[in-house]
Amino acid sequence: MRPDTKDDVLKRLSYVDGHLAGIRRMVEQDKYCVDILKQTYAVRRAIEALEVRILDGHLRTCVVEGIRDDRGDQVIGELLDLYTLKER
Amino acid sequence: MRPDTKDDVLKRLSYVDGHLAGIRRMVEQDKYCVDILKQTYAVRRAIEALEVRILDGHLRTCVVEGIRDDRGDQVIGELLDLYTLKER
Amino acid sequence: MRPDTKDDVLKRLSYVDGHLAGIRRMVEQDKYCVDILKQTYAVRRAIEALEVRILDGHLRTCVVEGIRDDRGDQVIGELLDLYTLKER
Amino acid sequence: MRPDTKDDVLKRLSYVDGHLAGIRRMVEQDKYCVDILKQTYAVRRAIEALEVRILDGHLRTCVVEGIRDDRGDQVIGELLDLYTLKER
Repeated sequence: MRPDTKDDVLKRLSYVDGHLAGIRRMVEQDKYCVDILKQTYAVRRAIEALEVRILDGHLRTCVVEGIRDDRGDQVIGELLDLYTLKER
Repeated sequence: MRPDTKDDVLKRLSYVDGHLAGIRRMVEQDKYCVDILKQTYAVRRAIEALEVRILDGHLRTCVVEGIRDDRGDQVIGELLDLYTLKER
Repeated sequence: MRPDTKDDVLKRLSYVDGHLAGIRRMVEQDKYCVDILKQTYAVRRAIEALEVRILDGHLRTCVVEGIRDDRGDQVIGELLDLYTLKER
Repeated sequence: MRPDTKDDVLKRLSYVDGHLAGIRRMVEQDKYCVDILKQTYAVRRAIEALEVRILDGHLRTCVVEGIRDDRGDQVIGELLDLYTLKER
């Protein structure tokens, strides 16, 4: 991972940690379940945004290099696996 | 939230925290992006499983009571909102 | 299903049919894959909107009646199954 | 699209059409909403499988060529858009 991608991903992970700590407090304080669920949805979206950042870096480095080095089948196979796995 | 649901949800949140700490280490140690993404997918699935637990409790308590107390429109409206929000 | 829900769902199904016919033409005319994929995503979203309509009707009739008739466990179990199945 | 991909995608579109016709009959015959929803979920999954086929072809042709022709930024930008759009 490039340094700027890595910094951004680590920062986003810290944000997700903080968000989850907030959800823990909501559960401990018996907040309304519907409000808790809206927050867990938001956390999953934050993780997805982080994935886009990782994927962006991956495509621009490993995938480009893989295709140029004739390892296209491998890197493309991995991308298709990820696409299929994404929501399972 | 009923005590057993609450305990289970808090335990699952701790598991998610641990999983995210593992992902942070993978990022710091420059592990392969594809492997990191598979782990972030797994974390999102773990959060979804936790949501099912919360929703289960919500349906069996607040929704049942809401319908019996003639607040069906409100609790059903909330469920539909959650369904629509779930993957956005 | 109530008559108005049924009419709306059937109308939405016709819309989805038309949309899919458009996608078929795009494939036959060798349109750009990225544009085709954006259309298949839109079709899936249209199907999801139709699901919300069906679920709305289901919650307001069968679920409310089920809970009032002490078959809450059954109707709630079905809802949780649907939630889990939704994106699998 | 390569001829074999195109044939496969068109065949899958026909399958989806048939499946939707079955759902229409279920709605017309007032089948149980939960059973109808399970079928609409299955249709969405079938469309997703078709997307994987289209994406597979796209990656192996346009993306590989784009990267070799120094249009990497463009083809990668499109892939990231698709990833973000996928479930919205």
